[in-house]
Amino acid sequence: MSMLSEKPHRRYNILTGEWILVSPHRTKRPWQGKEEKLPSFDQPAYHANCYLCPSNIRAGGIKNENYSSTYSFVNDFGALLLENENESFENGLLKGKVEKGICRVICFSPDHSLTLPLMKVSDITDVIRLWKKEYKELGERPEINHVQIFENKGAIMGCSNPHPHGQIWAQSSIPEEINKKSFHLKTHFDKHNRSLLIDYLEQEIKADERIVFSNDHFVVLVPFWAIWPYETMVIPRKHYQHIRQLNTDEEAAFAEAIKVVTTKYDNIFETSFPYSSGIHQRPTDGNEYSEWHFHMCFYPPLLRSATVKKFMVGYELFANPQRDITAEMAAKTLKHLPEIHFTSIE
Amino acid sequence: MSMLSEKPHRRYNILTGEWILVSPHRTKRPWQGKEEKLPSFDQPAYHANCYLCPSNIRAGGIKNENYSSTYSFVNDFGALLLENENESFENGLLKGKVEKGICRVICFSPDHSLTLPLMKVSDITDVIRLWKKEYKELGERPEINHVQIFENKGAIMGCSNPHPHGQIWAQSSIPEEINKKSFHLKTHFDKHNRSLLIDYLEQEIKADERIVFSNDHFVVLVPFWAIWPYETMVIPRKHYQHIRQLNTDEEAAFAEAIKVVTTKYDNIFETSFPYSSGIHQRPTDGNEYSEWHFHMCFYPPLLRSATVKKFMVGYELFANPQRDITAEMAAKTLKHLPEIHFTSIE
Ligand SMILES: O=P(O)(O)O[C@H]1O[C@H](CO)[C@@H](O)[C@H](O)[C@H]1O
Ligand SMILES: O=P(O)(O)O[C@H]1O[C@H](CO)[C@@H](O)[C@H](O)[C@H]1O
Repeated sequence: MSMLSEKPHRRYNILTGEWILVSPHRTKRPWQGKEEKLPSFDQPAYHANCYLCPSNIRAGGIKNENYSSTYSFVNDFGALLLENENESFENGLLKGKVEKGICRVICFSPDHSLTLPLMKVSDITDVIRLWKKEYKELGERPEINHVQIFENKGAIMGCSNPHPHGQIWAQSSIPEEINKKSFHLKTHFDKHNRSLLIDYLEQEIKADERIVFSNDHFVVLVPFWAIWPYETMVIPRKHYQHIRQLNTDEEAAFAEAIKVVTTKYDNIFETSFPYSSGIHQRPTDGNEYSEWHFHMCFYPPLLRSATVKKFMVGYELFANPQRDITAEMAAKTLKHLPEIHFTSIE
Repeated sequence: MSMLSEKPHRRYNILTGEWILVSPHRTKRPWQGKEEKLPSFDQPAYHANCYLCPSNIRAGGIKNENYSSTYSFVNDFGALLLENENESFENGLLKGKVEKGICRVICFSPDHSLTLPLMKVSDITDVIRLWKKEYKELGERPEINHVQIFENKGAIMGCSNPHPHGQIWAQSSIPEEINKKSFHLKTHFDKHNRSLLIDYLEQEIKADERIVFSNDHFVVLVPFWAIWPYETMVIPRKHYQHIRQLNTDEEAAFAEAIKVVTTKYDNIFETSFPYSSGIHQRPTDGNEYSEWHFHMCFYPPLLRSATVKKFMVGYELFANPQRDITAEMAAKTLKHLPEIHFTSIE
C-alpha cells in the first residue's frame, strides 16, 4: 500500500496511544554526521579487571561468587534504595515523593566474551529462570509494585561493561510507560474480553508483513508503530500476564526467540548490535490485571550501518518520535537474515 | 530539604503530567563507559565544503544566497512533504494517516565558526525575528497546524554540520508533546483563569533555588521536574501564547537570555556544549489557546564532563526518565558560572 511505504505518515501505537511520524522517502538522505566506534568481539572469557567476572572483587569491596551459570546481586550504585521512610513534598504547584526500590544486576553467564546471541539456548533458558525468580521474589515484597527487567547492550547504550548482563529496577511506583500500556490493554480487554495482543497477533500473522520469526509459543515481529529502526517485540502466543506463567517448553521457546532475534541483529551489519531491551508485564501491586499480556521489546539504535545510529533529538524530543525506514522494510530485512551468527558461518 | 537533595524520589512535571525519578545519591557512581569525542572550536569563518555557508551549492544542486545575516530554506531531505493528498489507513487494530508538512533549515549566521553563545545579542535578535516570520508564514498555511522550531547542537545530538543553524518542522497534526502540555496548561487556566507558567514563575522567583538568570522580560530556570542533567527553561514573564507577541525590547531580552544560558553551558565543562533546544508555543490551527504560555527548553545530554553524557536507555525507555544530580544542584552550578564565554576570558 503506497501511503505506508512511500509517503510521510503517522501511525498509531495501540499499546501507548501515541502517534509516531514515519518518513519512508527520507532514507535517501546523505549522512556526514557522527559515527560510533565499532565494538569488538575480541573479549577474553575471563577478564581480571571485570567486576562481573566470577570471583572478582567489585567496586564496593564485595567478592563475586565463583558462579558457573547465572548470578545476581544488588547494584552497588543503585538509583533506588529500600531503606528510606515514606515521605512526600508538596509546595504550591510542586509535588514529589520518596521512591523505594531495589536495583539488581543480572549476570547472564560467567563467560566474559559472550553476548545473548552467542549463548546456547539452554543457557538463555537459565537467564529466563533467573528473571522468573527475581520477578517473584522482588514482586512479593510489600514495597515493590513494579519490577522492570532490562538490558543495555553496547557502549552506545550506556553499558559500561561488555560482560553479558542485564538489570532489574524494582520500585514502589508504577512507571509511566506501564501506566500507558495498562490503560490501553484494559480498555480493549473490558470491551472485548480478549487480550489486545492476542487480537493484534492474529492480525499480524494473517498479514505476514511484519513477522520476523515464530515458534510454537512465541512470535517475534516489528510492531506496526515501531519507533527504533529495527525495533522488535517478542510476544507469547498465550495470554500470559507475566513470565512466571511460562512452563518448561515455553521457557525454551522464549530463549530460542531471544537467540534468533539477537543473532539476526548481529547479522544486519555484522557487528555486536547494540540495543536496550525490556520486559513489560503485570505490575506486582497485588491487583489482578487480567488485561496484561507480557512481551519483551528490543530498541536498537543503529540505522544505516554498524557505526551510524538514529538520533532521537530535537524534533523527536520536542514533538514526536520519528523514523525513516518503515516497519515493513525492517521486518523484511530481519526475516531474511540467517538465524546463524555471522561469526560462525565459514 | 533532605528528601529532595538526598533520597531517591519522584517529581511531578506540571506541564506534561509525568513523573520522573531522581537519584541524588547516585552521583558517586564511578564511570568506565563510553566517552564522546571533544568538539572543536576551531572552525573557519567560511568553509568551501559546508552546504550552509553563503553562496555554496547544496546537495540538491541549489545555490545558497550570499546572505549576510540569517537565511532559511526548505530542507532538501525533509521528513515532511506538502504535496500528498489526505489519505488514511485503517485495518482492524491498525491506524495510519498521511502527514503533510514542511521542514525548513534556519541558518543563524553566515559565519561558519560561530554558535549562539559566540554571537552578538543583536545577531541572536535577528534569529528571533526570523523565527517570528517563519512561525507566522508557516502557521498561516491552511495545512499547517503546528510549527516546531528547534536546534540540534553538536555531533552528539545528531547535528551533522557545525555551521550555526536550527530547523523548523511544521505539520498538519499536533505532536504528542504539545497535546500533553496543552492539556495541563488548559486545566490550570480553566480553573484559575491564570497561566500555569505565570503561577509557576511566581513560586520559583520566591523560592530562588532554581533560577539561573533573569532580565526584565525573561526568566531562565532549571525546572523542578527537569530530566536532562542541565535542562533549562526560558520563560517570558508575560503570558504570551507565542513568539510573535514579543515587542522589540522583549526580542532583545529573549536574545540576551539565550546568549547567557548557552554561554553558561559552554562554561560548565569549557567545551562547545551540545543540546537540543525547542520552542513550545500555541498550535497554529486557528483555535484561541488562551491557556498557552510559550517557552523555550534546552535539553543538554552532558553529565559528568565534556565527554561523558547521561544515557537515556533501558530503564528510561521502558519505565521512566531518571536523573542523578538534582535540579537544585544543576541550577546552583549554572547560576554561579560567568556570563562571559570562557574563550574570551584572558
Ligand atoms: O539535522 P538532520 O540531519 O535533519 O537530522 C537530525 O535531526 C532530526 C530532527 O530532530 C532527526 O530526525 C535526525 O535523526 C537527526 O540526525
Ligand atoms: O548500567 P548503569 O551504569 O547502571 O547505567 C546505565 O543504565 C541506567 C538504566 O537504564 C541508566 O540510568 C544510565 O544512564 C546508564 O548509563
